[in-house]
Amino acid sequence: MPIFSPREIERRQDEIRHRLRDSDAAVVFSFYNSYYLSGVPIVPWGRPSITIVPREGPPAMILPEIEKERACEHSPISEMHTYSDSDGPSEEASIRLLEGFLRSRGLRRVALDTTGTSIATAEMLQAAMPDIELSDVSPELDDMKLISSDEELVLIRTATDIAQVGVDAFIDACTIGAPEIVLAGNAMLAMTEYAAQHHENTETRVNCYSQQGVRSLQPHTGSSGDAIRDGELIALVIEVYAWNYQVAVERAILAGTPSDEQLHYYRTMTEAQDRAIQSIRPGTAFGDVDLAAREVFDSEGYDEPHCGTGLIRGLMTEWEGRIDGGNLRVYNENLLRPGMVLSVEPWAAVPGVGAARHSDVVLVTEQGHALLTKRAAGIIRVS
Amino acid sequence: MPIFSPREIERRQDEIRHRLRDSDAAVVFSFYNSYYLSGVPIVPWGRPSITIVPREGPPAMILPEIEKERACEHSPISEMHTYSDSDGPSEEASIRLLEGFLRSRGLRRVALDTTGTSIATAEMLQAAMPDIELSDVSPELDDMKLISSDEELVLIRTATDIAQVGVDAFIDACTIGAPEIVLAGNAMLAMTEYAAQHHENTETRVNCYSQQGVRSLQPHTGSSGDAIRDGELIALVIEVYAWNYQVAVERAILAGTPSDEQLHYYRTMTEAQDRAIQSIRPGTAFGDVDLAAREVFDSEGYDEPHCGTGLIRGLMTEWEGRIDGGNLRVYNENLLRPGMVLSVEPWAAVPGVGAARHSDVVLVTEQGHALLTKRAAGIIRVS
Repeated sequence: MPIFSPREIERRQDEIRHRLRDSDAAVVFSFYNSYYLSGVPIVPWGRPSITIVPREGPPAMILPEIEKERACEHSPISEMHTYSDSDGPSEEASIRLLEGFLRSRGLRRVALDTTGTSIATAEMLQAAMPDIELSDVSPELDDMKLISSDEELVLIRTATDIAQVGVDAFIDACTIGAPEIVLAGNAMLAMTEYAAQHHENTETRVNCYSQQGVRSLQPHTGSSGDAIRDGELIALVIEVYAWNYQVAVERAILAGTPSDEQLHYYRTMTEAQDRAIQSIRPGTAFGDVDLAAREVFDSEGYDEPHCGTGLIRGLMTEWEGRIDGGNLRVYNENLLRPGMVLSVEPWAAVPGVGAARHSDVVLVTEQGHALLTKRAAGIIRVS
Repeated sequence: MPIFSPREIERRQDEIRHRLRDSDAAVVFSFYNSYYLSGVPIVPWGRPSITIVPREGPPAMILPEIEKERACEHSPISEMHTYSDSDGPSEEASIRLLEGFLRSRGLRRVALDTTGTSIATAEMLQAAMPDIELSDVSPELDDMKLISSDEELVLIRTATDIAQVGVDAFIDACTIGAPEIVLAGNAMLAMTEYAAQHHENTETRVNCYSQQGVRSLQPHTGSSGDAIRDGELIALVIEVYAWNYQVAVERAILAGTPSDEQLHYYRTMTEAQDRAIQSIRPGTAFGDVDLAAREVFDSEGYDEPHCGTGLIRGLMTEWEGRIDGGNLRVYNENLLRPGMVLSVEPWAAVPGVGAARHSDVVLVTEQGHALLTKRAAGIIRVS
């Protein structure tokens, strides 16, 4: 079974064709854009996969021979040009095939995804085809990717569904004295088993870690070998990818008897998230959602947060694919539209307390919004 | 404790300074190069971290405010310029800071890591500083990264140590009828617990999956929800990152009673790996190691493999950082040097049988080579 229906992939290809202006073809090199326009998630490991959508005529892919079977399974694209490891450096081999394809089709004006294509790649292409005219199709692709289609929503719902299992597993097992990394490992195992049982045809990747107290001021690190300590505010982070569509669900957890300062921060953070979520509806500016959360922190006396309130979730990894126009940040004047999926996760960094937060996943609907995650009821406490 | 000693990071900076030719500074944008020259592994999540090593004067970093504390902990670099989410789109904010820094230091001829920097970034920099002269420092960085220093070797040994725990856990629990994904989940949990106990100050990331029979012909996918089947040849894949230094250890496992065809393939694959490993010593060409393995497959009547025999391991992810000059492929005339770490993992794709392999990690020494993983003794069978 392909991940996406042929109709879904062809819809995306048609849409990018209509946005090509005077270019002859969209030629995309990045993982996420090549996947988006072909339907095949080929993790690179140093071997480029290129998807080409000409304005006229059928699309094509250039990819490693070892990925061809998988590509044919998932993509409606029938023209595949492949290279092997013996054909010379993979980047050069792929550019040679691309050159051959573009020349054979008479395509000279080419729109690249410049945010996901390296300078080295562009120079190699320019050297192979000195008469090529390069332009940028990233803004058009980014604009399309801000909105999740029904088929994309299925994957996002799958990811939130699995993440919820991880949240519950971690919190259920969390007691003072339990090693953080074992709690995280068990939550990952619970998610993996659940995914195998309930979403057996979906390729998933899960991550879980926690950070206690001031350690949460250093974001994006892993769990330590520490045991859960009495009196700490804990940040629980769960990231789940379903066929590379990503969500992040986070929970703030209080262990033992909280201090007044911890309680005040916790309530402020929850209130900020409430206000941000309540502001979500079609036509609201991304920046105003951020502002709604910031006003709460400000009125409660916290320093201005360094971070925005959340971002568009879906086809991205920690390494690539985040779209600035989809960030919940004060300066972002873009308007919310139905079909957008956002994580809402306001926080402040509080010296001595930490930076735990709740992150929930919200879909913008025609009427307003719908929660895709089960929000925490009240303060989450363990003992 | 910083990941690397100040001396180690300063050695790298000095070495790149000496290789700058007529450029004023190396300015690197990619995760792996910025980490390599600063000592700080900042996973981007859409926020650039840039490391600058001028030929004259101290180095500097441009990074998100939220990562500053971590950066100060790990890097000997003392000049840090930070931006927050409120400063506008992160890419633009970082380029503004970079422009300010370069102008204040009078640096105009700038060498980028073009293999890891996007076209969009280069265009933004060029627009901000029309008089800038851009060149490429990727080949110099790649050449340096091919060889692991003693401190890097410690991380690689940590990763192989953890991977071995995963291999043993998977194989010990593997029986016909056991769900693949549960075996993989348990192996990940075993690795995580071991890492927390024995390498508690090292940030690690583990991955484990298996594929049975012809499913292994589609590489780089995950485990399915299937149970281990009698008569299948199983590919077990384990990837471990220690502070982002990566190794991959793989094992071919036979479940139940093997067919003659499976046994013949298994023995050929093992023999190919033996020959490849035996050929590893300083002065051997990368391509000759690949050839040693290919000759075995060829003489046993298998089709020419589409894949090379292995690659330099260390600072890379599945998304970026693989160095073509470090691939064990026929065309690669580079010579092995002491301090290089390679995975040796020859395989052939055999219709009806699959593509399982052993992958072991080998260090090139002054005298020849040393195995960093414990090779499988004979055929691995489960029932």
